Amino acid sequence: MPETKLSPELEAVVAAASAAAPAFAATEPAHRARAIVAVADALEAAKPRLVEIAMRETGLTEPRLNGEVTRTAVQLRLFAETIVAGGYLDARIDYADPAFVLGPRPDVRRTLLPLGPVINFSASNFPFAFSVLGGDSASILAAGCPLIVKAHSGHPELSNATAEIASTALREAGMPEGIFHLIHGREAGVQVLKDPRIKAGSFTGSINVGRLLADIAANRPAPIPFFGELGSVNPVFITADAIAERADEIASGLLTSVSGSAGQLCTKPGFIFVPEGADFEAAVVRSETPLPEHRLLDPRIAQSFNERRDAILGAAGVRAVVAGGVRFDEQGQGWAKPTIVAVSLDDFRASHDALVHEAFGPLTILVETPAGTDLAALMPEFYEGNLTGTVHLSEAEASGSTENFGELRALVAALAKQVGRVLFNGWSTGVAVTPAQQHGGPWPATSNDSSTSVGTAAITRFLRPVAFQNAPAAFLPVALRDDNPLGVPQAISPAGESQNWGSLV
Amino acid sequence: MPETKLSPELEAVVAAASAAAPAFAATEPAHRARAIVAVADALEAAKPRLVEIAMRETGLTEPRLNGEVTRTAVQLRLFAETIVAGGYLDARIDYADPAFVLGPRPDVRRTLLPLGPVINFSASNFPFAFSVLGGDSASILAAGCPLIVKAHSGHPELSNATAEIASTALREAGMPEGIFHLIHGREAGVQVLKDPRIKAGSFTGSINVGRLLADIAANRPAPIPFFGELGSVNPVFITADAIAERADEIASGLLTSVSGSAGQLCTKPGFIFVPEGADFEAAVVRSETPLPEHRLLDPRIAQSFNERRDAILGAAGVRAVVAGGVRFDEQGQGWAKPTIVAVSLDDFRASHDALVHEAFGPLTILVETPAGTDLAALMPEFYEGNLTGTVHLSEAEASGSTENFGELRALVAALAKQVGRVLFNGWSTGVAVTPAQQHGGPWPATSNDSSTSVGTAAITRFLRPVAFQNAPAAFLPVALRDDNPLGVPQAISPAGESQNWGSLV
Repeated sequence: MPETKLSPELEAVVAAASAAAPAFAATEPAHRARAIVAVADALEAAKPRLVEIAMRETGLTEPRLNGEVTRTAVQLRLFAETIVAGGYLDARIDYADPAFVLGPRPDVRRTLLPLGPVINFSASNFPFAFSVLGGDSASILAAGCPLIVKAHSGHPELSNATAEIASTALREAGMPEGIFHLIHGREAGVQVLKDPRIKAGSFTGSINVGRLLADIAANRPAPIPFFGELGSVNPVFITADAIAERADEIASGLLTSVSGSAGQLCTKPGFIFVPEGADFEAAVVRSETPLPEHRLLDPRIAQSFNERRDAILGAAGVRAVVAGGVRFDEQGQGWAKPTIVAVSLDDFRASHDALVHEAFGPLTILVETPAGTDLAALMPEFYEGNLTGTVHLSEAEASGSTENFGELRALVAALAKQVGRVLFNGWSTGVAVTPAQQHGGPWPATSNDSSTSVGTAAITRFLRPVAFQNAPAAFLPVALRDDNPLGVPQAISPAGESQNWGSLV
Repeated sequence: MPETKLSPELEAVVAAASAAAPAFAATEPAHRARAIVAVADALEAAKPRLVEIAMRETGLTEPRLNGEVTRTAVQLRLFAETIVAGGYLDARIDYADPAFVLGPRPDVRRTLLPLGPVINFSASNFPFAFSVLGGDSASILAAGCPLIVKAHSGHPELSNATAEIASTALREAGMPEGIFHLIHGREAGVQVLKDPRIKAGSFTGSINVGRLLADIAANRPAPIPFFGELGSVNPVFITADAIAERADEIASGLLTSVSGSAGQLCTKPGFIFVPEGADFEAAVVRSETPLPEHRLLDPRIAQSFNERRDAILGAAGVRAVVAGGVRFDEQGQGWAKPTIVAVSLDDFRASHDALVHEAFGPLTILVETPAGTDLAALMPEFYEGNLTGTVHLSEAEASGSTENFGELRALVAALAKQVGRVLFNGWSTGVAVTPAQQHGGPWPATSNDSSTSVGTAAITRFLRPVAFQNAPAAFLPVALRDDNPLGVPQAISPAGESQNWGSLV
């Protein structure tokens, strides 16, 4: 197998991560969990210093960044909890069965084991929660996989400071040397991703870069899984009755969701389908939700957003509802105020190519749908996979008792086919870090829709199943032993049950 | 997105499968399960007729094929059982939590939903169990995904007959039209795999073809998961003490495993590492295990096996222990008797390229390892991923009380890193169809190591997670409802628990 030739620095990183893999995989879950909690504690202890760097490097606000540090620490603690609880191991034990329906069955036991070294490409827009110690890193470390983080170029100083905290805390908690590394530079990331010792990759960023990396992972001599969270336009559907019931509340929620973090969120609602004539626009215009100017992450993103905004405003039939705009300061940084535009469904269709792609910044498009529009058919018509899809219903509609129930159910079913999370009467920004969360979706929302990048199920991305047949206790992974010293959930298939398979249905 | 232009016949197939997806996804689990049991019953009812065709088309023996039909029917019944039990849905419910540590948490519920239409490429060597109604097909249908089977060219008549049985049984059981299709021809399979309406692929076969198809799936405009089970050489390690204790029993087991189905099994043990001087060869030579001549699947496979056998016998240092051989009859069919060869570890290393690749047929290689060989280092040195790895230990070694325990544990750990199933004192052929089974392994054993193609976990390949946030009951998937009418397992996260995250570890 052709080896990638790495620079001496990268070779040292990959060699150390690879050498550390067996020892890290063998750490006791409770020990690994304590180390992860120690990392969370150290992160929070350094909050003022880190937030100061982050404000300077990203232009995000202090309250947002303070909240993000807390979120990142909570996320680490949740993964610590997850590995101690042990359900994520999916431990299965089939006892030997002399009466098995296909002839004597051996004792077969199966659990999930860590993949080995993983590279995680950080995001620009969450310098904590999707960066050096973000959700991907937390789940990689929790899984017991050595981690190489490729720092995002937008916050290098913060990345270094965070990595230093993580390395120190992991070492002091007694974790093996070599399980945590930070590297800089896209080419370095690509080289590491190509290395045969790397067993998976994760990424949060644009469709273009994500596709590039996913293709590299898939086309290696030995392909590896690549979990990229890419682009999303997060459509929202608001019914006429919901507007009649609470137009002002919905308008205010929309403006808050679109303007928060200057719209630089993967779950920002990008398209709002509203019934023609329901006059939702008026509610947006009269809303008193504060829409302060907010710095965009970096000059490149600001320039790109400004161009997208111009193109959208210039498309046939597009009207500005809230004008907003981008101002560039003397350092070249862009400062944005939110832009809300409206367009008829016909004009949206006519200007499809100019409008449909994600505008990464504070802008959303109201699409006015004529009465009788088949809402369930809209998403498949205009976009592929998305992270989220949202419906706003009236109280009566939510109860399922209205005449349009079938139509609404069809819309929800259509969304469920194309998104990872379907929301009701809420906003997609603000992704709860919680066991049932799903942050993913069909291409191009992610490069791998079988998984989530937020929530405890995220850990499964970095594990692989292994079965042990007739293994003596001394050779079994602890989670599969009869005495179950870790107290993890074990799904037991007793002898004899196969006789009834198929007769119970 | 550029659409693949399909022939009218293939277009009709893909359009029908795509149109059937919502209705099939919406079938009640118990209804789908009854339909799958009906398919199993119909398959078994047709056993004599189908086995007659299979014998003619594949050269496999009647007892083997009878057993395979039973196995295939049991597999279908097991999946019926699985979908009624509902644990595979991984239903998670996080109740709304006003006291959530990051601020009020919405109600979030997550379950797995069917991917949509899937294409399954059948295998040559299991005309029932990995073909039209095999494990992949069973898990695709159980998941609620419309299925397009690409028939293997080695048993077209059997494929047609089996498909007819499946179509009739599914229709009579009230399943939606369009959920089951059979197509013939590799180019047709490739065209379907490229179609944007197809959401996943599965495959059992060679590394070359599997890689070709995996690359197609990964490089589509919208990439899809592709679950290929490819090649494997299934190494076996036998200790000196195991040989001293029961050489004849082990030799007999080996010969049975290598010769069964003429060695045309993906789990056939291909390399047997034995200690130099332990004289395991003598036990093989004196074994009275019957080694009858067996027809190979088709002339192409026979020719290819014969060439591989010649190349192996011609490699430097290789000695025939049991000569065996291939004879071609007047129809061009090849008939094989098992071949066992031996080689020293040094010669094995020297002839690595000639020896290391899978020989698909009844042949295995004994590799004699000098005392002091680091067994744990052998696998990483000579091969990548495998489906299985096996160790034969003495009774004392199995108890973990011998001096070489550390060495043996290191060997087992090394195998667990590179294979999907680690066996003790048994043989890898004969893969039990059972909940804890794992039939997979790192590349090139499979193209996607996160999953299994045998056992109930196989169903997960054809599902994707979707979360529902603050969904009114009328809009929730049934598995996520509070009243839980299906009685499926639901993992509940109550309000308030986040306050303790990280403090319990």
